Amino acid sequence: MIVCRPPEGAPPVRFGRWSLEDYCDIVRNFHGSVAPGMLIGSFMVQHARAVLPPDILFEAICETRVCVADAVQLLTPCTTGNGRLRVINVGRYALALYDKFTGKGVRVHLDAGKLDDWPETRSWFLKLTPKAEQDTERLLGEIIAAGNTTIGRREITVDPSFLGKRKLGPVHFCRGCGESIPVAEGELCGGCRGGVLPYR
Amino acid sequence: MIVCRPPEGAPPVRFGRWSLEDYCDIVRNFHGSVAPGMLIGSFMVQHARAVLPPDILFEAICETRVCVADAVQLLTPCTTGNGRLRVINVGRYALALYDKFTGKGVRVHLDAGKLDDWPETRSWFLKLTPKAEQDTERLLGEIIAAGNTTIGRREITVDPSFLGKRKLGPVHFCRGCGESIPVAEGELCGGCRGGVLPYR
Repeated sequence: MIVCRPPEGAPPVRFGRWSLEDYCDIVRNFHGSVAPGMLIGSFMVQHARAVLPPDILFEAICETRVCVADAVQLLTPCTTGNGRLRVINVGRYALALYDKFTGKGVRVHLDAGKLDDWPETRSWFLKLTPKAEQDTERLLGEIIAAGNTTIGRREITVDPSFLGKRKLGPVHFCRGCGESIPVAEGELCGGCRGGVLPYR
Repeated sequence: MIVCRPPEGAPPVRFGRWSLEDYCDIVRNFHGSVAPGMLIGSFMVQHARAVLPPDILFEAICETRVCVADAVQLLTPCTTGNGRLRVINVGRYALALYDKFTGKGVRVHLDAGKLDDWPETRSWFLKLTPKAEQDTERLLGEIIAAGNTTIGRREITVDPSFLGKRKLGPVHFCRGCGESIPVAEGELCGGCRGGVLPYR
Protein backbone atom coordinates (compact mmCIF):
# COMPACT_ATOMS: atom_id res chain seq x y z
CA MET A 1 0.00 0.00 0.00
CA ILE A 2 1.30 3.44 -0.92
CA VAL A 3 1.85 5.60 2.12
CA CYS A 4 0.61 9.14 2.11
CA ARG A 5 2.39 11.56 4.44
CA PRO A 6 3.34 15.20 4.78
CA PRO A 7 7.03 16.17 4.46
CA GLU A 8 9.11 15.95 7.64
CA GLY A 9 8.60 18.88 9.96
CA ALA A 10 5.50 20.11 8.08
CA PRO A 11 2.33 20.77 10.07
CA PRO A 12 -0.24 17.96 10.07
CA VAL A 13 -2.73 17.93 7.20
CA ARG A 14 -6.42 17.46 7.93
CA PHE A 15 -9.40 16.88 5.66
CA GLY A 16 -12.71 17.78 7.23
CA ARG A 17 -12.79 16.17 10.65
CA TRP A 18 -10.20 13.55 9.72
CA SER A 19 -6.44 13.25 10.04
CA LEU A 20 -4.65 12.65 6.74
CA GLU A 21 -4.18 9.00 7.66
CA ASP A 22 -7.84 8.40 8.53
CA TYR A 23 -8.99 10.30 5.45
CA CYS A 24 -6.76 8.15 3.23
CA ASP A 25 -8.44 5.05 4.67
CA ILE A 26 -11.84 6.53 3.85
CA VAL A 27 -10.68 7.38 0.33
CA ARG A 28 -9.33 3.85 -0.25
CA ASN A 29 -12.59 2.40 0.93
CA PHE A 30 -14.78 4.67 -1.19
CA HIS A 31 -12.76 5.54 -4.28
CA GLY A 32 -10.61 2.38 -4.42
CA SER A 33 -7.19 4.00 -3.97
CA VAL A 34 -5.55 7.24 -2.94
CA ALA A 35 -5.24 8.47 -6.53
CA PRO A 36 -3.24 11.67 -7.10
CA GLY A 37 -6.30 13.39 -8.56
CA MET A 38 -8.40 12.35 -5.59
CA LEU A 39 -5.87 13.90 -3.19
CA ILE A 40 -5.55 17.15 -5.18
CA GLY A 41 -9.34 17.20 -5.51
CA SER A 42 -9.60 16.99 -1.73
CA PHE A 43 -7.37 20.06 -1.31
CA MET A 44 -9.46 21.81 -3.98
CA VAL A 45 -12.75 21.07 -2.23
CA GLN A 46 -11.39 22.18 1.13
CA HIS A 47 -9.90 25.35 -0.39
CA ALA A 48 -13.25 26.21 -1.98
CA ARG A 49 -15.28 25.39 1.12
CA ALA A 50 -13.05 27.62 3.27
CA VAL A 51 -14.35 30.82 1.65
CA LEU A 52 -18.05 29.94 1.65
CA PRO A 53 -20.02 31.26 4.62
CA PRO A 54 -20.07 28.44 7.18
CA ASP A 55 -23.83 28.15 7.58
CA ILE A 56 -25.20 28.12 4.02
CA LEU A 57 -26.79 25.31 2.05
CA PHE A 58 -24.56 24.81 -0.95
CA GLU A 59 -24.38 22.67 -4.05
CA ALA A 60 -21.51 21.54 -6.26
CA ILE A 61 -20.62 21.33 -9.93
CA CYS A 62 -17.63 19.31 -11.11
CA GLU A 63 -16.18 20.29 -14.47
CA THR A 64 -14.51 16.91 -14.97
CA ARG A 65 -15.79 13.36 -14.72
CA VAL A 66 -12.66 12.08 -12.96
CA CYS A 67 -11.73 11.86 -9.29
CA VAL A 68 -12.81 15.34 -8.12
CA ALA A 69 -16.45 14.31 -7.74
CA ASP A 70 -15.49 11.79 -5.07
CA ALA A 71 -13.61 14.43 -3.06
CA VAL A 72 -16.80 16.52 -3.14
CA GLN A 73 -18.86 13.57 -1.98
CA LEU A 74 -16.55 12.77 0.93
CA LEU A 75 -15.89 16.32 2.12
CA THR A 76 -19.25 18.05 1.57
CA PRO A 77 -22.93 17.06 1.94
CA CYS A 78 -23.26 17.03 -1.88
CA THR A 79 -23.64 13.62 -3.54
CA THR A 80 -24.73 12.31 -6.92
CA GLY A 81 -27.83 10.67 -5.46
CA ASN A 82 -29.04 13.56 -3.32
CA GLY A 83 -28.95 15.91 -6.29
CA ARG A 84 -26.55 18.42 -4.75
CA LEU A 85 -23.59 17.37 -6.94
CA ARG A 86 -23.68 17.64 -10.69
CA VAL A 87 -20.94 16.66 -13.08
CA ILE A 88 -20.91 18.93 -16.12
CA ASN A 89 -17.88 17.63 -17.95
CA VAL A 90 -16.18 20.41 -19.84
CA GLY A 91 -12.74 18.82 -19.53
CA ARG A 92 -11.26 21.11 -16.89
CA TYR A 93 -9.86 19.98 -13.56
CA ALA A 94 -12.14 22.28 -11.62
CA LEU A 95 -15.19 22.43 -9.41
CA ALA A 96 -17.56 25.05 -8.06
CA LEU A 97 -19.42 25.26 -4.76
CA TYR A 98 -22.27 27.76 -4.60
CA ASP A 99 -25.12 28.92 -2.39
CA LYS A 100 -28.17 26.90 -3.36
CA PHE A 101 -30.45 29.93 -3.24
CA THR A 102 -28.36 32.92 -4.34
CA GLY A 103 -25.99 31.10 -6.71
CA LYS A 104 -23.03 32.99 -5.25
CA GLY A 105 -20.01 30.82 -4.80
CA VAL A 106 -16.47 29.94 -5.68
CA ARG A 107 -14.68 28.03 -8.40
CA VAL A 108 -11.33 26.30 -7.90
CA HIS A 109 -9.06 24.68 -10.46
CA LEU A 110 -5.68 23.01 -10.51
CA ASP A 111 -3.51 25.71 -12.10
CA ALA A 112 -0.80 24.30 -14.36
CA GLY A 113 0.91 27.69 -14.15
CA LYS A 114 1.58 27.11 -10.45
CA LEU A 115 3.28 23.74 -10.85
CA ASP A 116 6.85 24.82 -11.65
CA ASP A 117 8.01 23.99 -8.10
CA TRP A 118 6.23 20.64 -8.17
CA PRO A 119 7.73 18.63 -11.04
CA GLU A 120 6.10 15.28 -10.23
CA THR A 121 2.67 16.90 -10.04
CA ARG A 122 3.27 18.82 -13.26
CA SER A 123 4.38 15.66 -15.08
CA TRP A 124 1.36 13.78 -13.82
CA PHE A 125 -1.15 16.53 -14.58
CA LEU A 126 0.16 17.30 -18.06
CA LYS A 127 0.73 13.57 -18.73
CA LEU A 128 4.42 14.05 -19.46
CA THR A 129 5.40 10.79 -17.70
CA PRO A 130 3.97 7.40 -18.71
CA LYS A 131 2.01 5.98 -15.78
CA ALA A 132 4.38 2.99 -15.50
CA GLU A 133 7.27 5.36 -14.76
CA GLN A 134 5.33 7.42 -12.23
CA ASP A 135 6.71 7.42 -8.66
CA THR A 136 3.33 7.54 -6.95
CA GLU A 137 4.57 7.79 -3.37
CA ARG A 138 6.79 10.74 -4.31
CA LEU A 139 3.93 12.33 -6.27
CA LEU A 140 1.51 12.03 -3.35
CA GLY A 141 4.14 13.48 -0.99
CA GLU A 142 4.56 16.42 -3.33
CA ILE A 143 0.80 16.99 -3.56
CA ILE A 144 0.59 17.08 0.23
CA ALA A 145 3.58 19.42 0.50
CA ALA A 146 2.08 21.73 -2.14
CA GLY A 147 -1.29 21.85 -0.38
CA ASN A 148 -3.40 24.73 -1.68
CA THR A 149 -0.56 26.54 -3.43
CA THR A 150 -1.31 24.96 -6.82
CA ILE A 151 -4.99 25.90 -6.81
CA GLY A 152 -6.58 28.86 -8.55
CA ARG A 153 -9.72 30.28 -6.93
CA ARG A 154 -12.26 32.88 -8.04
CA GLU A 155 -15.77 33.97 -7.24
CA ILE A 156 -18.61 32.88 -9.49
CA THR A 157 -22.37 33.40 -9.66
CA VAL A 158 -24.47 30.53 -10.93
CA ASP A 159 -27.22 31.52 -13.34
CA PRO A 160 -30.60 31.80 -11.56
CA SER A 161 -32.24 29.53 -14.14
CA PHE A 162 -30.01 26.70 -12.89
CA LEU A 163 -31.02 27.10 -9.23
CA GLY A 164 -33.90 25.51 -7.34
CA LYS A 165 -35.06 21.99 -6.70
CA ARG A 166 -35.39 19.82 -9.77
CA LYS A 167 -38.66 18.05 -8.99
CA LEU A 168 -39.51 14.86 -10.80
CA GLY A 169 -43.17 15.87 -10.93
CA PRO A 170 -46.08 13.46 -11.45
CA VAL A 171 -45.47 9.99 -12.84
CA HIS A 172 -47.22 7.69 -15.29
CA PHE A 173 -46.40 4.43 -17.02
CA CYS A 174 -44.17 4.21 -20.09
CA ARG A 175 -46.10 2.91 -23.10
CA GLY A 176 -43.11 0.81 -24.10
CA CYS A 177 -41.82 -0.99 -21.01
CA GLY A 178 -44.71 -0.26 -18.66
CA GLU A 179 -42.42 1.07 -15.94
CA SER A 180 -43.22 4.13 -13.87
CA ILE A 181 -41.62 7.29 -15.28
CA PRO A 182 -42.02 11.06 -14.83
CA VAL A 183 -44.80 12.47 -17.02
CA ALA A 184 -42.20 14.98 -18.21
CA GLU A 185 -40.40 12.13 -20.02
CA GLY A 186 -43.34 11.82 -22.42
CA GLU A 187 -45.16 8.63 -23.40
CA LEU A 188 -41.95 6.64 -23.81
CA CYS A 189 -39.03 6.56 -21.39
CA GLY A 190 -35.50 7.24 -22.59
CA GLY A 191 -34.81 3.51 -22.56
CA CYS A 192 -37.68 2.74 -24.95
CA ARG A 193 -36.93 5.75 -27.19
CA GLY A 194 -33.56 4.09 -27.73
CA GLY A 195 -30.07 5.31 -28.43
CA VAL A 196 -29.27 6.19 -24.86
CA LEU A 197 -28.86 3.04 -22.78
CA PRO A 198 -26.17 0.56 -23.86
CA TYR A 199 -28.46 -2.43 -23.25
CA ARG A 200 -32.02 -3.47 -23.93
CA MET B 1 -34.88 11.37 13.79
CA ILE B 2 -36.95 8.81 11.94
CA VAL B 3 -36.30 5.28 13.13
CA CYS B 4 -35.81 2.53 10.61
CA ARG B 5 -36.57 -0.99 11.75
CA PRO B 6 -37.79 -4.35 10.51
CA PRO B 7 -41.24 -5.56 11.58
CA GLU B 8 -41.41 -7.42 14.87
CA GLY B 9 -40.32 -11.01 14.64
CA ALA B 10 -38.78 -10.54 11.17
CA PRO B 11 -35.20 -11.66 10.60
CA PRO B 12 -32.56 -8.93 10.88
CA VAL B 13 -31.83 -6.96 7.70
CA ARG B 14 -28.22 -6.38 6.65
CA PHE B 15 -26.70 -4.22 3.95
CA GLY B 16 -23.22 -5.26 2.93
CA ARG B 17 -21.22 -5.76 6.09
CA TRP B 18 -23.50 -3.51 8.12
CA SER B 19 -26.51 -4.05 10.34
CA LEU B 20 -29.58 -2.05 9.29
CA GLU B 21 -28.95 0.39 12.13
CA ASP B 22 -25.29 1.00 11.25
CA TYR B 23 -26.13 1.27 7.56
CA CYS B 24 -28.79 3.89 8.29
CA ASP B 25 -26.15 5.96 10.12
CA ILE B 26 -23.87 5.70 7.10
CA VAL B 27 -26.73 6.72 4.80
CA ARG B 28 -27.62 9.73 6.98
CA ASN B 29 -24.00 10.83 6.97
CA PHE B 30 -23.54 10.44 3.21
CA HIS B 31 -26.92 11.07 1.62
CA GLY B 32 -28.32 13.41 4.27
CA SER B 33 -31.28 11.29 5.40
CA VAL B 34 -32.70 7.79 5.16
CA ALA B 35 -34.92 8.67 2.22
CA PRO B 36 -37.42 6.02 1.06
CA GLY B 37 -35.78 5.86 -2.36
CA MET B 38 -32.38 5.45 -0.80
CA LEU B 39 -33.61 2.48 1.24
CA ILE B 40 -35.36 0.81 -1.72
CA GLY B 41 -32.29 1.55 -3.82
CA SER B 42 -30.17 -0.29 -1.27
CA PHE B 43 -32.36 -3.39 -1.55
CA MET B 44 -32.17 -3.08 -5.33
CA VAL B 45 -28.36 -2.89 -5.36
CA GLN B 46 -28.06 -5.84 -3.00
CA HIS B 47 -30.58 -7.87 -5.01
CA ALA B 48 -28.61 -7.21 -8.21
CA ARG B 49 -25.23 -7.87 -6.64
CA ALA B 50 -26.43 -11.23 -5.28
CA VAL B 51 -26.62 -12.80 -8.75
CA LEU B 52 -23.31 -11.48 -10.10
CA PRO B 53 -20.38 -13.87 -9.75
CA PRO B 54 -18.63 -12.91 -6.49
CA ASP B 55 -15.15 -12.29 -7.90
CA ILE B 56 -15.74 -10.12 -11.00
CA LEU B 57 -14.90 -6.48 -11.61
CA PHE B 58 -18.20 -4.80 -12.30
CA GLU B 59 -19.54 -1.38 -13.17
CA ALA B 60 -22.91 0.27 -12.66
CA ILE B 61 -25.45 2.29 -14.61
CA CYS B 62 -28.28 4.14 -12.86
CA GLU B 63 -31.32 4.90 -14.98
CA THR B 64 -32.46 7.71 -12.69
CA ARG B 65 -30.68 10.70 -11.22
CA VAL B 66 -32.29 10.34 -7.80
CA CYS B 67 -31.25 8.35 -4.72
CA VAL B 68 -30.32 5.03 -6.32
CA ALA B 69 -26.84 6.25 -7.29
CA ASP B 70 -25.96 6.76 -3.64
CA ALA B 71 -26.99 3.20 -2.77
CA VAL B 72 -24.64 2.00 -5.51
CA GLN B 73 -21.83 4.14 -4.14
CA LEU B 74 -22.26 2.87 -0.58
CA LEU B 75 -22.80 -0.82 -1.36
CA THR B 76 -20.45 -1.41 -4.32
CA PRO B 77 -16.97 -0.22 -5.34
CA CYS B 78 -18.56 1.92 -8.10
CA THR B 79 -18.52 5.70 -7.58
CA THR B 80 -19.03 8.78 -9.72
CA GLY B 81 -15.41 9.85 -9.36
CA ASN B 82 -13.77 6.49 -10.05
CA GLY B 83 -15.67 6.13 -13.29
CA ARG B 84 -17.38 2.85 -12.42
CA LEU B 85 -20.82 4.42 -11.90
CA ARG B 86 -22.62 6.23 -14.65
CA VAL B 87 -26.00 7.91 -14.42
CA ILE B 88 -27.87 7.65 -17.70
CA ASN B 89 -31.14 9.24 -16.76
CA VAL B 90 -33.98 7.69 -18.71
CA GLY B 91 -36.52 8.31 -15.94
CA ARG B 92 -36.84 4.75 -14.67
CA TYR B 93 -36.25 3.66 -11.10
CA ALA B 94 -33.68 1.09 -12.13
CA LEU B 95 -30.01 0.25 -12.19
CA ALA B 96 -27.73 -2.27 -13.85
CA LEU B 97 -24.57 -3.94 -12.62
CA TYR B 98 -22.43 -5.65 -15.26
CA ASP B 99 -19.07 -7.33 -15.77
CA LYS B 100 -16.62 -4.65 -16.84
CA PHE B 101 -15.07 -6.87 -19.52
CA THR B 102 -17.89 -9.07 -20.85
CA GLY B 103 -20.79 -6.66 -20.32
CA LYS B 104 -22.91 -9.48 -18.90
CA GLY B 105 -24.94 -8.40 -15.94
CA VAL B 106 -28.26 -7.78 -14.33
CA ARG B 107 -30.84 -5.01 -14.27
CA VAL B 108 -33.19 -4.38 -11.36
CA HIS B 109 -36.13 -2.03 -11.10
CA LEU B 110 -38.80 -1.15 -8.60
CA ASP B 111 -41.86 -2.87 -10.06
CA ALA B 112 -45.06 -0.89 -9.52
CA GLY B 113 -46.96 -4.10 -10.36
CA LYS B 114 -45.62 -5.71 -7.18
CA LEU B 115 -46.74 -2.97 -4.80
CA ASP B 116 -50.35 -4.01 -4.18
CA ASP B 117 -49.49 -5.42 -0.75
CA TRP B 118 -47.47 -2.32 0.15
CA PRO B 119 -49.85 0.65 0.00
CA GLU B 120 -47.52 3.25 1.55
CA THR B 121 -44.76 2.34 -0.87
CA ARG B 122 -47.13 2.39 -3.80
CA SER B 123 -48.50 5.82 -2.80
CA TRP B 124 -44.98 7.18 -2.42
CA PHE B 125 -43.65 5.70 -5.66
CA LEU B 126 -46.59 6.74 -7.80
CA LYS B 127 -46.83 10.09 -5.97
CA LEU B 128 -50.42 9.49 -4.91
CA THR B 129 -49.88 11.09 -1.47
CA PRO B 130 -48.63 14.66 -1.03
CA LYS B 131 -45.28 14.58 0.76
CA ALA B 132 -46.67 16.52 3.74
CA GLU B 133 -49.18 13.72 4.37
CA GLN B 134 -46.62 10.93 4.04
CA ASP B 135 -46.05 8.79 7.17
CA THR B 136 -42.33 8.31 6.61
CA GLU B 137 -41.68 5.96 9.52
CA ARG B 138 -44.49 3.68 8.39
CA LEU B 139 -43.26 3.89 4.80
CA LEU B 140 -39.70 2.95 5.77
CA GLY B 141 -41.02 0.05 7.89
CA GLU B 142 -43.01 -1.18 4.90
CA ILE B 143 -39.99 -0.94 2.59
CA ILE B 144 -37.96 -3.03 5.04
CA ALA B 145 -40.74 -5.58 5.42
CA ALA B 146 -41.12 -5.84 1.64
CA GLY B 147 -37.38 -6.33 1.12
CA ASN B 148 -36.67 -7.69 -2.36
CA THR B 149 -40.25 -8.71 -3.13
CA THR B 150 -41.02 -5.45 -4.97
CA ILE B 151 -38.02 -5.64 -7.28
CA GLY B 152 -37.98 -6.91 -10.85
CA ARG B 153 -34.72 -8.46 -12.03
CA ARG B 154 -33.51 -9.61 -15.45
CA GLU B 155 -30.26 -10.37 -17.22
CA ILE B 156 -28.76 -7.80 -19.57
CA THR B 157 -25.72 -7.55 -21.81
CA VAL B 158 -24.09 -4.17 -22.17
CA ASP B 159 -23.07 -3.26 -25.70
CA PRO B 160 -19.34 -3.93 -26.29
CA SER B 161 -18.85 -0.38 -27.64
CA PHE B 162 -19.70 0.92 -24.17
CA LEU B 163 -17.11 -1.22 -22.37
CA GLY B 164 -13.47 -0.47 -21.63
CA LYS B 165 -11.61 2.28 -19.85
CA ARG B 166 -12.47 5.79 -20.97
CA LYS B 167 -9.02 7.34 -21.09
CA LEU B 168 -8.67 11.09 -21.03
CA GLY B 169 -5.75 10.90 -23.47
CA PRO B 170 -3.15 13.63 -23.93
CA VAL B 171 -3.80 17.16 -22.72
CA HIS B 172 -3.15 20.65 -24.00
CA PHE B 173 -4.19 24.16 -23.01
CA CYS B 174 -7.56 25.64 -23.89
CA ARG B 175 -7.17 28.64 -26.21
CA GLY B 176 -9.90 30.45 -24.30
CA CYS B 177 -9.21 30.08 -20.58
CA GLY B 178 -5.68 28.66 -20.77
CA GLU B 179 -6.53 25.73 -18.51
CA SER B 180 -5.30 22.19 -19.13
CA ILE B 181 -7.87 20.09 -21.03
CA PRO B 182 -7.90 16.80 -22.96
CA VAL B 183 -6.81 17.25 -26.57
CA ALA B 184 -10.01 15.41 -27.47
CA GLU B 185 -12.00 18.46 -26.27
CA GLY B 186 -10.62 20.47 -29.19
CA GLU B 187 -9.03 23.92 -29.04
CA LEU B 188 -11.67 25.29 -26.67
CA CYS B 189 -12.97 23.59 -23.52
CA GLY B 190 -16.69 23.14 -22.98
CA GLY B 191 -16.68 26.10 -20.61
CA CYS B 192 -15.28 28.47 -23.26
CA ARG B 193 -17.49 27.06 -26.03
CA GLY B 194 -20.40 28.21 -23.85
CA GLY B 195 -23.93 27.02 -23.29
CA VAL B 196 -22.99 24.24 -20.91
CA LEU B 197 -21.82 25.65 -17.58
CA PRO B 198 -24.28 27.86 -15.67
CA TYR B 199 -21.54 30.37 -14.76
CA ARG B 200 -18.66 32.16 -16.44
